[in-house]
Amino acid sequence: MSTLPIAGSTYDKQLSAAKTFITERDHFLVVAHLHPDGDAAGSTVAVGLLLEQLGKTYVMVNEGSIPRKLAFLPNADDVVNYEEVGLQRKYNSVICIDCADDSRIGDVRDAFTEDAQILNIDHHPTNDGFGSVSLIRTDAAATVEILYDLFQAFELTWNQPLATAIYTGLLTDTGGFRYSNTTPHVMAIAAEMLRLGVDGHELANNLLEKSSFAHILLLKKALSTLTFSDNNRLAWVMVTAADMAETGATNEDFEGIVNYPRNIDGVEVGLLFKETAADTYKVGFRSAGKVDVAQLAKSFGGGGHVRAAGCTLNGTLDDVVTQVTERVRSALQ
Amino acid sequence: MSTLPIAGSTYDKQLSAAKTFITERDHFLVVAHLHPDGDAAGSTVAVGLLLEQLGKTYVMVNEGSIPRKLAFLPNADDVVNYEEVGLQRKYNSVICIDCADDSRIGDVRDAFTEDAQILNIDHHPTNDGFGSVSLIRTDAAATVEILYDLFQAFELTWNQPLATAIYTGLLTDTGGFRYSNTTPHVMAIAAEMLRLGVDGHELANNLLEKSSFAHILLLKKALSTLTFSDNNRLAWVMVTAADMAETGATNEDFEGIVNYPRNIDGVEVGLLFKETAADTYKVGFRSAGKVDVAQLAKSFGGGGHVRAAGCTLNGTLDDVVTQVTERVRSALQ
Ligand SMILES: [Mn+2]
Ligand SMILES: [Mn+2]
Repeated sequence: MSTLPIAGSTYDKQLSAAKTFITERDHFLVVAHLHPDGDAAGSTVAVGLLLEQLGKTYVMVNEGSIPRKLAFLPNADDVVNYEEVGLQRKYNSVICIDCADDSRIGDVRDAFTEDAQILNIDHHPTNDGFGSVSLIRTDAAATVEILYDLFQAFELTWNQPLATAIYTGLLTDTGGFRYSNTTPHVMAIAAEMLRLGVDGHELANNLLEKSSFAHILLLKKALSTLTFSDNNRLAWVMVTAADMAETGATNEDFEGIVNYPRNIDGVEVGLLFKETAADTYKVGFRSAGKVDVAQLAKSFGGGGHVRAAGCTLNGTLDDVVTQVTERVRSALQ
Repeated sequence: MSTLPIAGSTYDKQLSAAKTFITERDHFLVVAHLHPDGDAAGSTVAVGLLLEQLGKTYVMVNEGSIPRKLAFLPNADDVVNYEEVGLQRKYNSVICIDCADDSRIGDVRDAFTEDAQILNIDHHPTNDGFGSVSLIRTDAAATVEILYDLFQAFELTWNQPLATAIYTGLLTDTGGFRYSNTTPHVMAIAAEMLRLGVDGHELANNLLEKSSFAHILLLKKALSTLTFSDNNRLAWVMVTAADMAETGATNEDFEGIVNYPRNIDGVEVGLLFKETAADTYKVGFRSAGKVDVAQLAKSFGGGGHVRAAGCTLNGTLDDVVTQVTERVRSALQ
């Protein structure tokens, strides 16, 4: 097993404090952010498995349900959907996972006692340190990576279900080991989890390769609008409100479509124009690296990162497309 | 560094023999299979870097060029395209990489002397053991995984360029660590290569996320034909010869399109009908797991694996689609 990444550090002290928090209490509410993703859901069930090994009792809860494609997670059925089922009582000991601030907990806060003690385990750089005890490592790729460290501190017995939960969080928060947060430590943990019997192929298939029905219908519509200009260095697609309605697409189904134009060989800037209301368009900017799209989006009152940014503009589709593509054109020169 | 997977085995003896083969000679021809992929090209330059460290001289050569997206590989420019440039002399010591049989070497065989000694390094289960010395491990995900073992045996000094070559082969031959050949050993090597400074994010972007221009145009055409039946448990797309011609797509551009229908949530069988000549269609079958498409393809005179198979049928597109979908329908029931 890998050694802890930062020995004798503040992080080590946080690990000790987290361990004490859990050791000294007996009954826990375990909650991740609303509408949990792979890291949130994987972390939740992993903490549940830890508490089980320690002989503690606990309830796992979320505002919103575990997505169907994460239903394979061990004990996923036991995660209470707070909106639908609610809880019978309030809890004094809370383990809060993958939440940058307590608003991310959503309505589940109503299930905390007034003097509830919160252990805040997270990797978001924007975490505000809410709660009584923090276990935060902002250079971790996923909360499950921090849990791996915590479980090592507990000298927990590893097994396949636990490894599956950890692997799921790593896989989804690194985009399948493709994002720049995929550190050697992440890969080394993934190797250990595979050694414990995780079916990485099946997880990748279900979590990364599968598209929703609405996603593929939306992709079909979006690609039918694919337009190139500037020697194919600029490309864009458009999605109307009618497209969203006709395909029944949610924001989750919409994910990833913005990347298609930029991912074409030779394209420097890819754009997506999405109608969000009458004469209102959200513009997604993606750069292959040469153009700083944060600057471009900012010039339209938006913002973001060098390679991924966005803004919202008013006007007809034609006007908005002309305005934005002209400014990208200047940047390309 | 990871230990060798099989100590004191036949494989260990093969490693020794390969080491001796290289140690005892001075000038090498290094060749991978024609039209090299990421594993072939990564392995080629990695062997070159090994030979350089050992103070040997060598020439790297291929029938066909290194694909443009692999041009970042260290010394990729030094790999001779045999068809275009040829070689001045013949070689007696050959290191042959990622080739299941010597036909995969292509015309480069003409550059071997009649009594050439060949070291055959490969991971294909079908490798026929051609050559004088074999270093074959068929449970390796990629030839670079075997090279990793060989380099450990040489106690070679690892560095970032070498690690990049190894990582490239792992990444491409495992489909981005998604195929079932992604063993713990593969992941552990990947972790080590990242530790040596490989930019895994950039490699994944360039090798896995990028699509060719022709690919995306073909995808757009294919998706415009997307058809569902049987409660969306069966879905298919069609690609005509005209589509291929209009988009200028090669077989490489075509790759991956067959997976789109099957990858839709709820679809059990995905099909692709590709016109290869007048009234002739290649049919690609993909299964989500419940239906054995090898059986289906076999019933049409084709074959393949449980989840991926194919056949060729004659008739009009309508006839072929009707014939195939009816048989899939029976299998779904
Ligand atoms: Mn997370
Ligand atoms: Mn290979």
